[in-house]
Amino acid sequence: MEHMFASRRGHLGGLVVLGIDPGLTRCGYAVLQAQSATKISALSLGVLRTSPTSALPDRLAELHDEIAALLREFTPDAVAVEQVFFQANVRTAMSVGQASGIALALAARDGADVAQYTPSQMKNAIAGWGGANKDQVQRMVQVRLGLSVPPQPPDAADAAAIALCHIACAPFMALQNAALQERQSAI
Amino acid sequence: MEHMFASRRGHLGGLVVLGIDPGLTRCGYAVLQAQSATKISALSLGVLRTSPTSALPDRLAELHDEIAALLREFTPDAVAVEQVFFQANVRTAMSVGQASGIALALAARDGADVAQYTPSQMKNAIAGWGGANKDQVQRMVQVRLGLSVPPQPPDAADAAAIALCHIACAPFMALQNAALQERQSAI
Repeated sequence: MEHMFASRRGHLGGLVVLGIDPGLTRCGYAVLQAQSATKISALSLGVLRTSPTSALPDRLAELHDEIAALLREFTPDAVAVEQVFFQANVRTAMSVGQASGIALALAARDGADVAQYTPSQMKNAIAGWGGANKDQVQRMVQVRLGLSVPPQPPDAADAAAIALCHIACAPFMALQNAALQERQSAI
Repeated sequence: MEHMFASRRGHLGGLVVLGIDPGLTRCGYAVLQAQSATKISALSLGVLRTSPTSALPDRLAELHDEIAALLREFTPDAVAVEQVFFQANVRTAMSVGQASGIALALAARDGADVAQYTPSQMKNAIAGWGGANKDQVQRMVQVRLGLSVPPQPPDAADAAAIALCHIACAPFMALQNAALQERQSAI
């Protein structure tokens, strides 16, 4: 029998996970609902955009409010955020870090489980190896969610892949938590 | 005659500026009130701390709520945040970036003027040269705010120095804004 996912927050269709690919110009998001590891549907998928011509604090404030609105609308059981690394472009890395800080803070304030996954953890979980390219990630997301076309733009696909990565890990985390509770109740 | 500072938000003692030296383990803050470029007093000065043993999202959520509380309590006219750069320690730089993102977003949402200054702009403004060390910054902050002892820890002194840097720039910004309005009303 396949492991079934229950929503901590009473969502009838199972576990709801918000995946976020943090960014300032384009911040990908995906709200997925998982009944089991194979029965997964997309409730919402897209990109939050802020205008490159606005001042940085205003753009971050806009992103703050849009992420808060997603949390209010979908009350996800868990939020999975792509873990940021320092890339060649230092300017971009800083704004990605600022965006991820806002996403992580809001998710924790909302009481959701919060997890971060590196790009290679995500690619491993969804495509079977850490070196998968954008096309492969998009096609795997399409198959896993039963979409008629690959999700666009890549930021939205990446956010869906991060959420799928969290769903793939969820049974192991449930087992770990159960084992932990057993150990604690045995003390 | 010395230029007098008026508070946009009706603070009777003049312009109120919140300075922030962003960080996750220690986030320095200083709330200064300036009647003029030389009559400046500290309303509050200290450090927000989050526990290194807590999970990153929980720490960022805690910082989010503490900064929001400072904004509610003091309704600053302006918020000045130290601009983050990539240092040798990549781990620290990332968490400093995440903390600064939260500070900038909350300040902009609050409707305050928001400015960022680099460490060398700050040192130039307060100590006269960009290479000043921590001791010199602390002593200059002590003198400028008429404190009996140098402010401790250095994070709080840095936050005060960032706010002082903003106050030093305020007359020029007021002139710029006035010139801009004049140009616009002439069109």
